[in-house]
Parts: sequence; C-alpha cells; structure tokens
Amino acid sequence: MLVTGQIWCFLLSWTSRGKQDVETITAAQYFFVYNAFSFTFATMAATTLFLWISRSQVGAAYKPALTISGLVTAIAAYHYWRIFGSWEGAFQVREGVVVVTGLAFNDAYRYVDWLLTVPLLLIELILVMRLSSSETVSKATKLGLAAALMVILGYPVEIADDNATRALWGTLSAIPFVYIVWELFKGLGEAIEHQPESVRGLVKHARLLTFASWGFYPLVYMIPYTNLTGATIETGIQIGYTIADIVAKAGLGILIYMIAVRKTAIEYKDVGKPVPATA
Amino acid sequence: MLVTGQIWCFLLSWTSRGKQDVETITAAQYFFVYNAFSFTFATMAATTLFLWISRSQVGAAYKPALTISGLVTAIAAYHYWRIFGSWEGAFQVREGVVVVTGLAFNDAYRYVDWLLTVPLLLIELILVMRLSSSETVSKATKLGLAAALMVILGYPVEIADDNATRALWGTLSAIPFVYIVWELFKGLGEAIEHQPESVRGLVKHARLLTFASWGFYPLVYMIPYTNLTGATIETGIQIGYTIADIVAKAGLGILIYMIAVRKTAIEYKDVGKPVPATA
Repeated sequence: MLVTGQIWCFLLSWTSRGKQDVETITAAQYFFVYNAFSFTFATMAATTLFLWISRSQVGAAYKPALTISGLVTAIAAYHYWRIFGSWEGAFQVREGVVVVTGLAFNDAYRYVDWLLTVPLLLIELILVMRLSSSETVSKATKLGLAAALMVILGYPVEIADDNATRALWGTLSAIPFVYIVWELFKGLGEAIEHQPESVRGLVKHARLLTFASWGFYPLVYMIPYTNLTGATIETGIQIGYTIADIVAKAGLGILIYMIAVRKTAIEYKDVGKPVPATA
Repeated sequence: MLVTGQIWCFLLSWTSRGKQDVETITAAQYFFVYNAFSFTFATMAATTLFLWISRSQVGAAYKPALTISGLVTAIAAYHYWRIFGSWEGAFQVREGVVVVTGLAFNDAYRYVDWLLTVPLLLIELILVMRLSSSETVSKATKLGLAAALMVILGYPVEIADDNATRALWGTLSAIPFVYIVWELFKGLGEAIEHQPESVRGLVKHARLLTFASWGFYPLVYMIPYTNLTGATIETGIQIGYTIADIVAKAGLGILIYMIAVRKTAIEYKDVGKPVPATA
C-alpha cells in the first residue's frame, strides 16, 4: 500500500505544474482526464458487449454471473458517458487555453455508480462460485448490503472540506470494508477450496483483485492530504478513480468469464464442445 | 519508472498538436478528412454487425474469434464517431471558407483506440488458429502486452516537435514491434503449418495483413519528416491512419470470418450444413 502511495506521489509530481486550483487547470491536465474518461467509456462498453455475447458459451449455471458482470460494466459505461459530458461542459479549450464555462463538474455520478455496482461486483463473484442456492442468497445479501453501506459512509469523505471529517467518515466506511474482507477470505475461503482445481487459482485472483482494487479507492481519497493543491489534486483523483474502476469492473469481468468458461468445460459435456466431422 | 515518468511528461505536455498547422486548411482538405471519418465510422459499425450476426454460423470454438473481431471494430466505430465530432467542432465551413472555431481537434482518441484494439487484433488471430488453451493464454498474453507497449512507446513520436525525439521513441516502439513480428512468423509459423490445408493460405494472409498494415503506421508517422507543411501534413496523417485502420481492423475481421467458416465446415458436422429438403 505504501509503495502504491509513493508511486502515486511520483505520478502526481509529473502532473504538477505549480500550485493551481481547479479553475486554472492546464490544457494538458484537461485532456489527460478527458481522454481517460473516453477510454474508460470505451473499455466498459466493450467489456459489456463481450460478456453478454459470451453468455452463449457457458453452461446455464454460469449465465447469471456473466449477465451481472456485464451489467456492472454497462452501468459504469453509462456513468462515464455522463461524467465525460459533465467534464466537457465545465471546460472548453480555445486556442490551447482552458476556459472555465462556469458549469459545475458533477462527479457525484461516481457514488451513484458505486452504490449500484459495488454490491453487484460481490454478487458476480459469489455467482461464479456456484454455491448452494441458500448460501448464494445469504452471502449475496450480506455482502451486497455491506458494500452499499461502505459506499454511503464513504461519500462524506469525498465532499468534506476538512481532514477531521474525512477521517471520521473514512473510519466508519472502513468497518463494512473490513467485514467484506473478512467474509471474502474467511467465509468464502472454504468454498474456494471446493472449487475445481483448474479454476481455484483464478477464483483466488478474482478475490485478490476485488480486495486490491477496492483498497486503491481510499488511497485516492487521501490525495487531498498531500501538499499538492487544486488542479493537480483534481487530475490525480479523476485518473486514480478511473484506473481503479477499470481494474475492479472490466478486469474482474474478464476473470469471471475465464472462470465460467473453464467450469463449463468441466461440468457440462454439451456446451461449446466440437462435434468431430467424422463422428 | 523513469521511462514511464517521461511518457507521462510527454503526454501531459500535449496541448493541441499542430494547431498553427491546420489553421490554413482548405475547404477541400477539410471535407476530404470529414468524409473519410464518416466513411470509416460506417465501415467499422457495419463490420461489427456482420461479425456478430455471423457468430451463429460458426462452431463454438470459433465464436470467441468473431466476438473479439467485432469488438475491435465496435471500439473503432466509437472512436471514429468521437474524432468526427471533434473535427466538426474544430472547424466550420461558411460561404466555402474554412473558419477555425478555436476548439482543439483531439486526435489522441487514436491512441486511446489503439491501446485497446491492437492487443485485441493479435488475440483474434490467435483465437481463430484454435491452439491448445494453455498456448492460447500464453501467446495472447505475451503478444497483447507487447502490442500495448508498442502503442504507449509510439505516443511520444506523435506529439514530438522535433525529429530527434521522434527517432528516439520510434526506435523504442520498434522493439516490441520486432518482437511481435518474430512471434508471428517464427512462434506461430509452426502452428500455421498444422492448420487445415484449405485455410493455411488465409491464415498466412491474415498474418501478412497484420504485419503490412501495422508497418503502414510508422510511414504515416514519418510524414512530418517530409518537406510538406501545415494542413497538407495534417490531411495526410488523418487519411493515412484512416486507411490503415480500415485495413487492419475491418479487413482482418473479414479474413477471420472466412477462416472461421472454412474451419467450421471441416471440424463440425452439425453447424451450417444444409439439411436436404427430402430427408
């Protein structure tokens, strides 16, 4: 975590062009965020199409996992489309200079997105494990609610103006996060040991990806604690959340797809198998 | 890390490349590029629909190749839509005269596009060859990462103002390119010899198309080295990249489709075969 933080500072020192507030964002910072939003929209939309088209290649038990995984990236694609539009509305670049239009940049879209997608991310992980239906419902409910609570309690951290408020709500938000981590590693640990050997590694990767990418969000929160100010902070926050979203949503979706395809090959004899021409 | 930092630095120093260059663009040049962008959007979108609709005509093993091929053209269609909009925003034609609006023309969309699509292009070629699953994952990972690295290292060439910088990053970017060519011709060479005879020629064509169309991009890079200036360079770059994109993405997609259909006819007895009316 500390190493990641140092990498961040390093990254931010490159983006730094003196102490500025958001109103004096440079054209380079503006376009960096602009292109990152467009890239993320394209990535999320492409992942959605891939996951939904690929439903036909997995056994019936794994179709819901791909449906939900694609839903997460579809919701994210919608929100990145909106965030992109809001960013375009807030600034214009004329003659290479950024002009502030006066319209607010709304990135509360991120919280609206997380409130929907973060519980669904845990649910896709549970679905691809194919537990008993009672276990699936129980774990999906508990983890889904904890995830929603974590997002709600994290919102005041984002909008706070002082570090005391940030610390209070950050701590409260960390409680459901710790519970989720405990459930993922202890509660689901035994279930993972019962997964077929060929996917056990992949499921553990998916769990680690969920944990690591979520751990990245608090680091982005912490950017305002640094000595950096204004437009550099804004750029850092936007790029940081964007990277975290791509890893947590599109990255996890692809892992879920790989797990579903491998388990289908083991558990279904009639899906996706070639019929030899000579048979 | 230092290299990454330098890349970021270049990325951030980008404002609006060649702004002064394009101010003297003629109406004919403006409309040539404008119509080329619209044509390319239509080509990419149509290819996407064709490839996805055609999934039902190929065996299960070839569906992922068509899914990914359609994803590449879908991502390209999105980016041409955006580039078209940015071009429309940067200029207006009034009374037959081009008026510069002052809004920046953003063609960083191209790099954002290549970062996603170039690795996927190699993956579609590997998928249609139907190697063992471990070989597929290993080759897709190695070639995909090399392709992403090639695009990232190529970006400073695009935004550089001097030929020394262009030469440095162009050389660095050529290293993963040479590795990819080596993998395509040496690493995949043996696998191609094991393809059914009726598709061997097509697979070699697909490989050659990939190599030749990618080799076209550095030629477009080199346009600023010529004695041409301003709007002519800009027009040449835009039209050059557009042709390369159509050949590399839509062209390769159609070849992948032909290979998948022929291999399905050989390997599957129940897909796409006519049932005699008298049976």
